[in-house]
Amino acid sequence: MPDRLRKQMEFLIEIDKLTGVLRQTLVLDGSRRENSAEHSWNLALMAVTLAEYSADISIDVLRVIKMTLIHDLVEIDCGDTFIYDEVGGIGKVERERIAAERIFGLLPDNQSSELRALWEEFEARQTAESRFAAALDRLQPILHNYHTQGAAWKKHGITSHKVIEHNKHIVEGAPKLWEYALDVIHQAVEQGYLDM
Amino acid sequence: MPDRLRKQMEFLIEIDKLTGVLRQTLVLDGSRRENSAEHSWNLALMAVTLAEYSADISIDVLRVIKMTLIHDLVEIDCGDTFIYDEVGGIGKVERERIAAERIFGLLPDNQSSELRALWEEFEARQTAESRFAAALDRLQPILHNYHTQGAAWKKHGITSHKVIEHNKHIVEGAPKLWEYALDVIHQAVEQGYLDM
Repeated sequence: MPDRLRKQMEFLIEIDKLTGVLRQTLVLDGSRRENSAEHSWNLALMAVTLAEYSADISIDVLRVIKMTLIHDLVEIDCGDTFIYDEVGGIGKVERERIAAERIFGLLPDNQSSELRALWEEFEARQTAESRFAAALDRLQPILHNYHTQGAAWKKHGITSHKVIEHNKHIVEGAPKLWEYALDVIHQAVEQGYLDM
Repeated sequence: MPDRLRKQMEFLIEIDKLTGVLRQTLVLDGSRRENSAEHSWNLALMAVTLAEYSADISIDVLRVIKMTLIHDLVEIDCGDTFIYDEVGGIGKVERERIAAERIFGLLPDNQSSELRALWEEFEARQTAESRFAAALDRLQPILHNYHTQGAAWKKHGITSHKVIEHNKHIVEGAPKLWEYALDVIHQAVEQGYLDM
């Protein structure tokens, strides 16, 4: 087998481990915790469906989709950190950088550089594509929590103020989706799924 | 909420059900059956990583990725049919057509038409993009079976001749990946993961 194809296959074999990384949010039927591979697929389809709500409507959708597909690969080494978990967040940047080095490093050099750069762009949220991808990454768990009667919010005692505080950067990537998210958050409070 | 956004959200809520559709193949650590959402994410990342092996190297990768993301959505209504299951395959085309009508029909008209057309293109395998996407869809379970010691092959008494017969159209979309697949199949026979 050519060395290039061998590296690509090693990468593809390795990343399947993301199916074993569990998130705090449940799948929408509430039966179990969602894993990060399913979450990534979900975001990619949100990018396809909701691209028109990007703050910048001239975004490159292919780049957004690629970001959603790879944004959580570092969790293979680091696990998923709940966004409201301040202790778990300590040292996260450094741990994830090392993981990115290892995981994207499995690929041939040109692809390793491309995907590594896309992941860094996603993390930095300085471009239109990364702001939009990051907005979807925050909107999705709000929807999943709402439709599972606030399961993860309740389990961790999260309040609506915290949800707003931690997710308000959605407005930078997708102002209309932030309006929608605020509406969902208010309804969640009304329904008793989320404490004020 | 605007009617258009309401429809888009209904679609996004509905498709999460794909996380509950189980395939015959196992996830690579062998711990459980893979679901069709994870499989779709897997294929999308194969498209990103392996696009250079497409028979037609001028393919539109965005269209390929979109196909991989949506190709199994009809299974929400129809379940996954194992490709070697001839009885389960009876009436499949008609059942899946009805499912596509319902599921893509949840979207606003322009998006419903676009994704429905992409799904039909994938099924028909008449374009370079659909041939490549379909090649990935067949290569992935071969890899998963090999790396789980032939679990699904053994369970259903599948032989190497059947694997070759049912998957040989990989060559149309990605000749070099078919060479690779044949190599994996031969190794699987040698290792005792697959009967001759």
